[in-house]
Amino acid sequence: MGTPRSAAARVRVRYADTDQMGVAYYANYLAWFEVGRTELLRALGWSYREMEAAGVALPVIEASCRYLRPAHYDDELDVRTTGTLVSPAQLAFEYDVRRAGTGEVLATGRTLHAGVNPQGRPCRLPARVRDLFV
Amino acid sequence: MGTPRSAAARVRVRYADTDQMGVAYYANYLAWFEVGRTELLRALGWSYREMEAAGVALPVIEASCRYLRPAHYDDELDVRTTGTLVSPAQLAFEYDVRRAGTGEVLATGRTLHAGVNPQGRPCRLPARVRDLFV
Amino acid sequence: MGTPRSAAARVRVRYADTDQMGVAYYANYLAWFEVGRTELLRALGWSYREMEAAGVALPVIEASCRYLRPAHYDDELDVRTTGTLVSPAQLAFEYDVRRAGTGEVLATGRTLHAGVNPQGRPCRLPARVRDLFV
Amino acid sequence: MGTPRSAAARVRVRYADTDQMGVAYYANYLAWFEVGRTELLRALGWSYREMEAAGVALPVIEASCRYLRPAHYDDELDVRTTGTLVSPAQLAFEYDVRRAGTGEVLATGRTLHAGVNPQGRPCRLPARVRDLFV
Repeated sequence: MGTPRSAAARVRVRYADTDQMGVAYYANYLAWFEVGRTELLRALGWSYREMEAAGVALPVIEASCRYLRPAHYDDELDVRTTGTLVSPAQLAFEYDVRRAGTGEVLATGRTLHAGVNPQGRPCRLPARVRDLFV
Repeated sequence: MGTPRSAAARVRVRYADTDQMGVAYYANYLAWFEVGRTELLRALGWSYREMEAAGVALPVIEASCRYLRPAHYDDELDVRTTGTLVSPAQLAFEYDVRRAGTGEVLATGRTLHAGVNPQGRPCRLPARVRDLFV
Repeated sequence: MGTPRSAAARVRVRYADTDQMGVAYYANYLAWFEVGRTELLRALGWSYREMEAAGVALPVIEASCRYLRPAHYDDELDVRTTGTLVSPAQLAFEYDVRRAGTGEVLATGRTLHAGVNPQGRPCRLPARVRDLFV
Repeated sequence: MGTPRSAAARVRVRYADTDQMGVAYYANYLAWFEVGRTELLRALGWSYREMEAAGVALPVIEASCRYLRPAHYDDELDVRTTGTLVSPAQLAFEYDVRRAGTGEVLATGRTLHAGVNPQGRPCRLPARVRDLFV
């Protein structure tokens, strides 16, 4: 359904993100994915903050991540996010997380989101969102 | 201003809570303090969930913690919380976090909270809250 | 490869876990899954803490979650975890998260783990781990 | 004991950082303080990553924060960190967190850190650390 759109965001691994194995704890990647899709929406001209203010929420209905190599404290990571409209009511984002500098892929993932109206009911995505991803 | 009220809550250190020093990361204690005060309010008969539903929020305006001994992965911790009314508009909670079993004190802390109405404005605490702590 | 083993663990949604949509943030489910598998291993008689002390680590190599209904602040959740040996070197855990009381399923998920030795290299799981899941 | 050294770091409030009050949860400020002191050490030429590799750890022994105004989702925040040697074995960092753009102070805080050797024992800070803060 159209050309996927993508953008990159950079995060740095905080001490808070590490665990006693000496690597970034696995749940943090989902927060980094959030940074990735936030920056993608901003780059496309309609930030998620504005989208929510306009009454459109995009809760996550599925998430997955494959962990290929560990991320370490103080590493800079590049999160590349690609968004695709999978139906008039659902958006998918795909992510890869690379170590800045070397470009090694540390993780890949995907989240699926459903449009939800201010009453919390699933709804068709507004034309403006659909247009961003076509 | 009256007798302080107190209650205990138990938490277990998750892998997610550890950092690469092999101990619980310092910010997590503030989340454990939240568990402590939540259980204290529940024990006193007016849960924070019900309080918010009734239009009273208690945002934190000050927090502090002294870290005496590290907490490790899988440790069970007892968070003892004592609440005191410090003014008609402010509540303070004091905490100590002990290792279950040995009773060693790992940390002590304090949070100060202001009553806030549904418009987000500071307000006098409702009589029902004030009564809990007198 | 043998009968799956399962156990239940209870968590309560903290204020820290919520987000401005008024529901538990999606990454927290992965931390709850960790609680689930920790309690399963403990129930089977070899806690993850002891396992690590014995030189066996089980880092996550894949994780996924489907979010069916939101979890709210102060909800009690039951995390049921089932473990299965998927190869001599890999363990999988499957989870369902239900609202305590009603039993409604809020989320389901799966994590895949590889045995890793103290040098951080993938390794065959020790017989004692394999035996837990046969 | 000498001129304090300071540096600034920028963070953006993530959805993960918000809570159901619609503001950043209070414990996150401690993670942002960590970002602040990490960037200060990097600016002074000895990153905390390198410091740990050289056998010096700086665990937090006290932390405090005053919350003056809420931070909201997607806000950009400037964390200004000032470090001071308070004894040959202890460093203090002071922080202020301002909303980027307006410069409004949202929070101020302080952490106190003790030098610890690779055996986990308190120790005199190495000359190189002491020199950074004189």
